[in-house]
Amino acid sequence: MNASIILAHPYEKSFNHAIFHTAEKTFKNLNVNVYAHDLYKEGFNPVLTTKELGKEKTDDDLVKQYVDEMLQSRILVFVHPNWWGQPPAIMKGYIDRIFRPPYAYDYDESNEGNSGIPKLTGKVGIVFNTGNTKAKREEEVFHDPLENEWIQCVFGFCGIEKSYRRLFRVIANSNDIQRKEWLREVEEVIRRSIED
Amino acid sequence: MNASIILAHPYEKSFNHAIFHTAEKTFKNLNVNVYAHDLYKEGFNPVLTTKELGKEKTDDDLVKQYVDEMLQSRILVFVHPNWWGQPPAIMKGYIDRIFRPPYAYDYDESNEGNSGIPKLTGKVGIVFNTGNTKAKREEEVFHDPLENEWIQCVFGFCGIEKSYRRLFRVIANSNDIQRKEWLREVEEVIRRSIED
Repeated sequence: MNASIILAHPYEKSFNHAIFHTAEKTFKNLNVNVYAHDLYKEGFNPVLTTKELGKEKTDDDLVKQYVDEMLQSRILVFVHPNWWGQPPAIMKGYIDRIFRPPYAYDYDESNEGNSGIPKLTGKVGIVFNTGNTKAKREEEVFHDPLENEWIQCVFGFCGIEKSYRRLFRVIANSNDIQRKEWLREVEEVIRRSIED
Repeated sequence: MNASIILAHPYEKSFNHAIFHTAEKTFKNLNVNVYAHDLYKEGFNPVLTTKELGKEKTDDDLVKQYVDEMLQSRILVFVHPNWWGQPPAIMKGYIDRIFRPPYAYDYDESNEGNSGIPKLTGKVGIVFNTGNTKAKREEEVFHDPLENEWIQCVFGFCGIEKSYRRLFRVIANSNDIQRKEWLREVEEVIRRSIED
């Protein structure tokens, strides 16, 4: 079994990095082959090109590699902070450039304006986010937009029905004990994912 | 009076470009000084750096310029397509890098986990989007996430209370007559904005 883990955070001592490393280690202990990518470290360019607007093949070798690995992976894990109710630009660019037709979905010419043809059916999607907004304010004012963005707009559109998302908060004033507990939770989610 | 118009679309013959040029021309006809930027054309780098995580000054001259112009502008206009219920990565990076503390908002150390101190109070925010999903599906399945992302999460967080957003759809099968009508609507929105 293969799994991809994609990380977007500029600071290598961030809690996002700790989640990333925990997920990678857990998969390896379970004998799952892991494609683990730190987008910042690998210098990923998030800007979709004019050529990539349609179905044409990309010229970017890193994009080709990420697409291949996504298609080969049964489990797709994304780790990033909540910035403005959205992923950091470098992760948004991963979505723009990797979740492309004809790989992640395809156009349905007979049904313009409605839906595409999902191509990632059967895969499992997992999202770990960190945030600095308290739960009450997040839900009442901002409506935790990342939940809908990932689960419906990305996973749902591409046919991924089995998904799990966890938002860890408030990161800025969390202590070591809390963080260790959260990492144990990450480990548990990864363990369960391979049974799905 | 000053206004900023920020465009994110890779294809220079896109309808987004037509909106951008119409908005620019309308402001000029009204004797408003315009800072108009095509992010793709200007090669904007959307990746926020480790240094920019806090309040530290950026090293990127284009970011400095965009920040200065945003602060000088009474009206902020954003033009982009709906990609996955979010802006293209290059526009998300504009948000990440330009809407930064201490310019667009500031930290409130006494109120961690709740809100920042808004710094763009009094400005007017306008968003023009294009989409290829029919209204019914957009509202029932995807919930038009861009509305909340811009109006609450970005404008609201920074104190921008006067805002307007319009999603033009379905672009892919629109004809010339429809597009001309939409551009007249853009002109009207810009005209009204300077009276706000």
